[in-house]
Amino acid sequence: MSDDPADLRRTLETLRTLGPLDATAMVAATAHLDALTKPPGSLGRLESLAVQLAGVTGEPRPTFHRRAIVVAAADHGVVDQGVSAYPPDVTSQMVANFLAGGAAISALAGTVGASVIVVDAGVAAAVPPADGAAKARLISAPIRAGTSDMSVGPAMSRDEALRAIALGLDVADRLVHDGVDLFGVGEMGIGNTTAASAVTAAMTGLPAERVTGRGTGIDDARYRHKVDVVTRALERNRPGPADPIGVLAMVGGFEVGVLVGLMLGAAASRVPVILDGFITGAAALLAAGLAPGIEGRFVAAHRSVEPGHAVVLERLGLRPLLELDLRLGEATGAALAMSLVDAAVAVRDGMATFDAAGVSGPAADAEHVEETR
Amino acid sequence: MSDDPADLRRTLETLRTLGPLDATAMVAATAHLDALTKPPGSLGRLESLAVQLAGVTGEPRPTFHRRAIVVAAADHGVVDQGVSAYPPDVTSQMVANFLAGGAAISALAGTVGASVIVVDAGVAAAVPPADGAAKARLISAPIRAGTSDMSVGPAMSRDEALRAIALGLDVADRLVHDGVDLFGVGEMGIGNTTAASAVTAAMTGLPAERVTGRGTGIDDARYRHKVDVVTRALERNRPGPADPIGVLAMVGGFEVGVLVGLMLGAAASRVPVILDGFITGAAALLAAGLAPGIEGRFVAAHRSVEPGHAVVLERLGLRPLLELDLRLGEATGAALAMSLVDAAVAVRDGMATFDAAGVSGPAADAEHVEETR
Repeated sequence: MSDDPADLRRTLETLRTLGPLDATAMVAATAHLDALTKPPGSLGRLESLAVQLAGVTGEPRPTFHRRAIVVAAADHGVVDQGVSAYPPDVTSQMVANFLAGGAAISALAGTVGASVIVVDAGVAAAVPPADGAAKARLISAPIRAGTSDMSVGPAMSRDEALRAIALGLDVADRLVHDGVDLFGVGEMGIGNTTAASAVTAAMTGLPAERVTGRGTGIDDARYRHKVDVVTRALERNRPGPADPIGVLAMVGGFEVGVLVGLMLGAAASRVPVILDGFITGAAALLAAGLAPGIEGRFVAAHRSVEPGHAVVLERLGLRPLLELDLRLGEATGAALAMSLVDAAVAVRDGMATFDAAGVSGPAADAEHVEETR
Repeated sequence: MSDDPADLRRTLETLRTLGPLDATAMVAATAHLDALTKPPGSLGRLESLAVQLAGVTGEPRPTFHRRAIVVAAADHGVVDQGVSAYPPDVTSQMVANFLAGGAAISALAGTVGASVIVVDAGVAAAVPPADGAAKARLISAPIRAGTSDMSVGPAMSRDEALRAIALGLDVADRLVHDGVDLFGVGEMGIGNTTAASAVTAAMTGLPAERVTGRGTGIDDARYRHKVDVVTRALERNRPGPADPIGVLAMVGGFEVGVLVGLMLGAAASRVPVILDGFITGAAALLAAGLAPGIEGRFVAAHRSVEPGHAVVLERLGLRPLLELDLRLGEATGAALAMSLVDAAVAVRDGMATFDAAGVSGPAADAEHVEETR
């Protein structure tokens, strides 16, 4: 792994050179879809997904045979303020659960043929050994055993923020080198919705209460406290959108930094990234701050119940594929969205054309195509 | 196949006896889900889907190894009024395409391991023979070669409506007997959004313009015409919600009748039914008219862009799993939703419990569970 910010500079330069999505591939993808035996566009967002994936990869009909679900994990000093009902030990316990194959993401990754890679970017407690063979790969490269409490000072140093991003770049490079052609990204970290709320507030300029979640069953008192903690962190650190690395350092998390680097690295290699929920969305805001336009290379899997997530998606201009009231994280939504990628590829490559099937097109002009035929 | 309305009476009596969903199975399903390594309810609608499927089947953890996608096909006399841009021959051409495996539903059914059964309930033109081995099963039992034009008189006789329902009951019985444990339902029929709009207006009392779609690119003139045709059909026939069979006869379609029978038969056998789009939704309205409460046994796959579909789902009290701007029909949305059933089953059966994984629960009381932990 390189801690050299030169890697980040090179990646950002690559992204600038890449520019927007590949228009030629997208036009070819659209033409192909329109020749298939269905009214043009009638498969809605499955079709736009197929076109976007063409634009990201530069191939009219890309396939995705090697999918990686990357779950970045780290702890958060801000849990000292009592923002989470779960004890911080749960972060390491859940990493062990990922390795043992007992977590939700373990089950869901299996349904879409994705491998799970867990990146320990700064888990506080030692990860308990898993019984039996590991069901996920662990990349253990902790920046530190959890961030500092952002409500009393910066969560991490600028150097640590750069190292977290460099770790993510390195993970992306390694996996792309191994042949990974589709990423789903997620996270695990007790207290990390608090960090995501602070990052989102810093990047959008919105007040803490707009981007902080009440959660199921969180009472008014606990919610007010969480908003206060985010507000205090923002007042204490004064992060601003012009300096995304500063935002990451002041109010982010080590796993958030890894996700930023992973997104940048994957995008620079033209590999599509499926975002999960609020925390990955906050990381995507930082990535877009560093590399404007990169968000076109991301697929938003779902919209969670966290109000800040809706804000993030709106800022990124991304419409989520699913709205299933998920609020688990771990890349569970990203894994579900991979089945829609499979569906998009299946119709694209499995359907007959009007000509081949001997099916008539519209009798009148195309403007008169009726809804469901 | 029996044309005897006694079959319908028996099925409705079975449904009355069955009553609401199985509460014991649902409580057991919920308790199991709450023991898994995630905050309770954090997998949102995947969890409620798992609980609903328990309630429908009466088993706490049902599995679905034999899925059938039933596509009912028929033609509509109302196409004489120019309500569709596609020539009616497309209905039979698409049936041939289903059998040849070249349609969107062919590709999508393959991704979820479902077999496709096409029911010819009244396709006007002869179905062209498919080249090679059929990729779908055809049940050919046409009531008549397309309905009559509902804008000048009833679409079919009451006897024909009962025969279409009986055909659907029979198809359900046959497939359940073959071991089918999950249905996805869809349709093919040029002109059938016009019939679905009329059925929805008749069952809800809403005016035609509220439940008739503009469609992508349909201009104002064509839209006004379609609304007028639906309005004329309603004025001419005067169907009312107290008599769902009358509604089917006056303004429905043969494939709609088959779908009604299929839904009733599947529900009476405790087999879950995944609805597709607007036309299957209109059929579900009729089924719910005949057997109030049956809608709890249905899963709404998606909300299409047809405005009438939103009305139908609201009336049925069903929240769609997906919103992908689909407007194809063929059960394509139902097939996509089957992958969410797979996901729900995978987490339910694949995850570790808190106890087994050694993961701590919330430190404070359950009311303080934070959003994404």
